[in-house]
Amino acid sequence: VNWTVEEWSARIAAGDQRALARGLTAIENRTPPAAGLLKAIYPHTGRAAIVGLTGPPGAGKSTLADRLIEAARNQGRRVGVLAVDPSSPYTGGAILGDRLRMMRHHTDPGVFVRSMATRGALGGIAAATFHAALLMDAAGFDLVLVETVGVGQDEVDVARLAHVTIVVLVPGMGDDVQALKAGIMEIAGVFAVNKADRPGARQLVSQIRGTLQLVHPSLENAPPVLETVATEGKGVPQLLEAALARRHEASLEQRIEGWKSRLRQMLVERIAEQMAPADLDQAARRIAEGRQDPFTIADELLERILRR
Amino acid sequence: VNWTVEEWSARIAAGDQRALARGLTAIENRTPPAAGLLKAIYPHTGRAAIVGLTGPPGAGKSTLADRLIEAARNQGRRVGVLAVDPSSPYTGGAILGDRLRMMRHHTDPGVFVRSMATRGALGGIAAATFHAALLMDAAGFDLVLVETVGVGQDEVDVARLAHVTIVVLVPGMGDDVQALKAGIMEIAGVFAVNKADRPGARQLVSQIRGTLQLVHPSLENAPPVLETVATEGKGVPQLLEAALARRHEASLEQRIEGWKSRLRQMLVERIAEQMAPADLDQAARRIAEGRQDPFTIADELLERILRR
Repeated sequence: VNWTVEEWSARIAAGDQRALARGLTAIENRTPPAAGLLKAIYPHTGRAAIVGLTGPPGAGKSTLADRLIEAARNQGRRVGVLAVDPSSPYTGGAILGDRLRMMRHHTDPGVFVRSMATRGALGGIAAATFHAALLMDAAGFDLVLVETVGVGQDEVDVARLAHVTIVVLVPGMGDDVQALKAGIMEIAGVFAVNKADRPGARQLVSQIRGTLQLVHPSLENAPPVLETVATEGKGVPQLLEAALARRHEASLEQRIEGWKSRLRQMLVERIAEQMAPADLDQAARRIAEGRQDPFTIADELLERILRR
Repeated sequence: VNWTVEEWSARIAAGDQRALARGLTAIENRTPPAAGLLKAIYPHTGRAAIVGLTGPPGAGKSTLADRLIEAARNQGRRVGVLAVDPSSPYTGGAILGDRLRMMRHHTDPGVFVRSMATRGALGGIAAATFHAALLMDAAGFDLVLVETVGVGQDEVDVARLAHVTIVVLVPGMGDDVQALKAGIMEIAGVFAVNKADRPGARQLVSQIRGTLQLVHPSLENAPPVLETVATEGKGVPQLLEAALARRHEASLEQRIEGWKSRLRQMLVERIAEQMAPADLDQAARRIAEGRQDPFTIADELLERILRR
């Protein structure tokens, strides 16, 4: 197939899933047509809610994702899912066992699931994930669910690019997890206390609310904290509702903040692509051989990139 | 105090901990003297082993860090610790409960503990962490232990900058954690199967070895996989030994690879600092108001940065 960018984007906008799949591949691999395709598709975007789903391992994110898809489908919404995976040169984009559960939606034409692999790209995976979500938006999906594994900076970056992010926590995890909340507080649009039938759920809800109150004294406009039992589907429609409401309440100022994050991320990734591998190779060799200090060399490389 | 960069670096090299602490602050906040200080200090570096310690929440990293410090101190080594924390605008660099355990080393002048906060910096925290480690190296610490929380791209970046990274895993974690291993495989210099007194430890060891064998068929030069019970200190001296051996075995080619990662990271962070906040603000507003598409705007901003 040899579509022009115009044909390609028209096909995506018309709901052609093969055109969409190829578009996602172009974005993931950062091949040349991706940039043109994104510009062409942009006027077709703006309808979908891009909802992040993040939280520590073991919080039940995949089960919750499955139930959120179900809830959205029951309301007649079409759902795109982006599963952001860590990957390695060995496995090249792992298929997560947990995700197989989403397979029950695989025969439903109103659900489109796609994995995004971190390819050790310099700028991370956040911008590419956002671009992929835009493509799904243009293709007519009403909800684009972006599920991340892990709780590091990469996940925070991905969450920042979403319209609203659901942070999933569970009762009874240790100090580590409590600490992670710090980094995650700023990106949470809605909290889900999952496995809420376990002891400690109520305390966790109060704990989260207590922390939120430091910033939102009256808890007005604070992110809602909802209890879910994903394995039974309990509380999930309400969670979806809360996330969608949050997206629609966003003020112009909040949308500007969102675009600032996205632009920043897009720029870092683009600049990273400007670096000539041979220059980098030679520079690293000079340092390793003790011939020059890394800071002077970094200055030189920077000069060269900026002069291009 | 108003030291020149020369005095400042001389003081650090002489082991003045106040000068070191102020240097670390300059690096963390990216204030102007940091760059000059790093160049001045660089000739004093190269002696320390910079050892990363990473793994999922609940793997017992902090207890292991505590025991590694103990083991290194028993051998008469001086130890610097960098604890890389997620943080938020609210908490501004969380103090992790778990880390308090390291406090028992606080009165030991041969141990210097410092937290590094992710300040939502564009380029992440990896380069700053590496710079901080170099400062500790120059200050005469023989071992610089870099402990990260979480398992995202940021942790992978930090680990890449270390000389060698210990990846801590525990038996009995779910699919999520197994998947995380994929991303982590490429950065692991040594594996610690912690809580090795629990059921499933042996299987986990074989599982890791099995995966390693895909790349190192004879398991020669493969990262060693060691069992530890950090709470009792079991296996910890051997783990330290293995990490230090790994660092000393690094070939010139491996050291060149290490410097490539470091340079790349340093450059991304520096370029990110070139962006004028006002430009970004205005650009984001134009997108949010629907006046222009983000891709055309990103092109324009990129032009402006590269032309500076």
